[in-house]
Amino acid sequence: MTSSFFPPQRTLMGPGPSDVSPRVLGALSRPTIGHLDPLFVQLMDEIKVLLQYAFQTGNALTLPISAPGSAGMEACFVNLVSPGDTVIVCQNGVFGGRMRENVERCGATAVMVEDNWGEPVSVDKVAAAFAEHPQAKTLAFVHAETSTGVRSDAQALCALAREHGALSIVDAVTSLGGIPLKVDEWGADAVYSGTQKCLSCVPGISPITFSPRAVERIQQRQHKVQSWFLDMQLVMGYWGGDSKRAYHHTAPVNDLYALHESLVMLQEEGLENAFARHLRNHQALVAGLEAMGLSMAVAAAHRLPQLNAVNIPAGVDDAAVRSALLSDFDLEIGAGLGALAGKTWRIGLMGYASNERNVLSCLTALEAVLARQGADIRTGAALNAAAAVFNAG
Amino acid sequence: MTSSFFPPQRTLMGPGPSDVSPRVLGALSRPTIGHLDPLFVQLMDEIKVLLQYAFQTGNALTLPISAPGSAGMEACFVNLVSPGDTVIVCQNGVFGGRMRENVERCGATAVMVEDNWGEPVSVDKVAAAFAEHPQAKTLAFVHAETSTGVRSDAQALCALAREHGALSIVDAVTSLGGIPLKVDEWGADAVYSGTQKCLSCVPGISPITFSPRAVERIQQRQHKVQSWFLDMQLVMGYWGGDSKRAYHHTAPVNDLYALHESLVMLQEEGLENAFARHLRNHQALVAGLEAMGLSMAVAAAHRLPQLNAVNIPAGVDDAAVRSALLSDFDLEIGAGLGALAGKTWRIGLMGYASNERNVLSCLTALEAVLARQGADIRTGAALNAAAAVFNAG
Repeated sequence: MTSSFFPPQRTLMGPGPSDVSPRVLGALSRPTIGHLDPLFVQLMDEIKVLLQYAFQTGNALTLPISAPGSAGMEACFVNLVSPGDTVIVCQNGVFGGRMRENVERCGATAVMVEDNWGEPVSVDKVAAAFAEHPQAKTLAFVHAETSTGVRSDAQALCALAREHGALSIVDAVTSLGGIPLKVDEWGADAVYSGTQKCLSCVPGISPITFSPRAVERIQQRQHKVQSWFLDMQLVMGYWGGDSKRAYHHTAPVNDLYALHESLVMLQEEGLENAFARHLRNHQALVAGLEAMGLSMAVAAAHRLPQLNAVNIPAGVDDAAVRSALLSDFDLEIGAGLGALAGKTWRIGLMGYASNERNVLSCLTALEAVLARQGADIRTGAALNAAAAVFNAG
Repeated sequence: MTSSFFPPQRTLMGPGPSDVSPRVLGALSRPTIGHLDPLFVQLMDEIKVLLQYAFQTGNALTLPISAPGSAGMEACFVNLVSPGDTVIVCQNGVFGGRMRENVERCGATAVMVEDNWGEPVSVDKVAAAFAEHPQAKTLAFVHAETSTGVRSDAQALCALAREHGALSIVDAVTSLGGIPLKVDEWGADAVYSGTQKCLSCVPGISPITFSPRAVERIQQRQHKVQSWFLDMQLVMGYWGGDSKRAYHHTAPVNDLYALHESLVMLQEEGLENAFARHLRNHQALVAGLEAMGLSMAVAAAHRLPQLNAVNIPAGVDDAAVRSALLSDFDLEIGAGLGALAGKTWRIGLMGYASNERNVLSCLTALEAVLARQGADIRTGAALNAAAAVFNAG
């Protein structure tokens, strides 16, 4: 017989899922009601409005896809890309590669704009790609690369797409709620995110938003969307406007309780305060890491405050360090991904997990484990350096 | 400012979601851990084994898709159907129509076998379709039609597919855990279900299983699967065999805690006991409804014990009755769907919701509301009729 599962209480400072607020876990386990219950329909309406706040948009088509961020990505591509299209896809980490897969599975051609992992997308290269491929109708890029901890200039890239009459598809999985993401002001056309990063919510849901221009393209499609589950015309019918809702699928009721609570918390804190908190904790962490003698993998101008890529010091056993942090401190940090596997750690400070206690306990645990492994680090300086940032703030 | 949401405590006796066990809600809100945490990987392995038990299969490729049943349906079609294929699709309710949509969006041709809503799929008609379309490589049908409360003969249909060298795709969303579903004995090739019906779990996840023959077809595909998110070769890499797991998406960690707990409960009760419980409660409900003077919409031989379609008596206001049940008794029953809208109610007795208390309180509430509306029913007889079934059992 298999027994019930009782997970330990970890501190989640990897690339996500991040720590979930106890308020959100409390909401998650409230009694399930029907997905067509009038009270649930009200909840859906509130979630749409709260997501508009989080995305800083007035887009009517703003809602959570009932599946993880990868499905949110796919929802954007299958609805906006048609067979034969040309899509400019920027790759500076893992997730640009997935975008390419999505484009190609739509029967379209991906024009790749490559940048080094750990560097932002080059706006100049994208401009050159548009010049070379004037038929490109879509630009796709990652705002906050979870695999490298790099922020790209979403505002400039969205503006470039508009200049060329193209729509922009923006991966905001790790940015939503952590750094400014001004969907309307920047003119982003299709933006998807995830619940398990800076929203402090459980994984499994993908908030998305489509601009009126994107909706127009969907309505003018000549080919049926290849995914029935992700066909936005059907999903829209379920999430409804003023009219009666058409059954499409059964919404993940409890996950949406959790998402609602996490968005209520974001609204209570205020977006600007949330961004400032993420930034301050990041600065303190970096001060501590550098005081310890470690170096950051990304240039200061392009760092994501919510995801800190740290170079693994020479001679240190990557897996052994992460394993010791997990077993001795119940602390999860992330491994490097793809080209950066074995070269960096990724320390997340996302959402509820972005707090002073986590910064200090992570520095403490990392210093203890590295010292035990005989790594060449400076001990006894990290906490003071981090505290100085907090005390100044 | 939007406030936190506190749902009422409903009794869910519609077509799903059904009542979620408190044990499952408790598991759902346990602390989130990382999706690559060694303890989470163990949990994933346990879930696969528990699902094999529920599906009565030894299929290695048995796992939960991280999205609702509609995505599970799509996962079966996009992986097994290629452009140009012919698929025989049986329709005797809403969900056969969705299957057709899936087939056509794969670039394949759907040969429809139509039966009346409220009747099972005709095995003879399917045999005739195979005779007329010998090139058909796939047969798709719904085992337990949620829109009508009808059970079709999955064993005979799967056998027919095998005879013709075709694979079978079986919708078992409402059957898994409620009525016998013998994947291996019947030779079903791709079967998908949902968590929110007879598993007593929250909605949002779709358990699936693929036979070795189905896996072989996937491995021999000439066209890339059009969905990246649902590409089983990638999903398999994440859910792993013995080798290292490849990151694909972030699993919905807490939903999988809940699924695990619901499957542990199913194992504790035992499949045969769960089926017997569903049957007994169904018989008691029907006895009570008929004693009240109501009639069932489906012939006795084809009824699903977990989903009872009842004819709405003439002159009764469908919506007003359901609304009164909800507001005065916190009881949700289902409306008719599609061709049966306004003609039937669907009373679910699924999973944790299938118990004696619910049978009796549903009869009590329905009688009270119908009497208040002046419906032509017999009062005072239903509870005794139901009790007689329980006392005999």
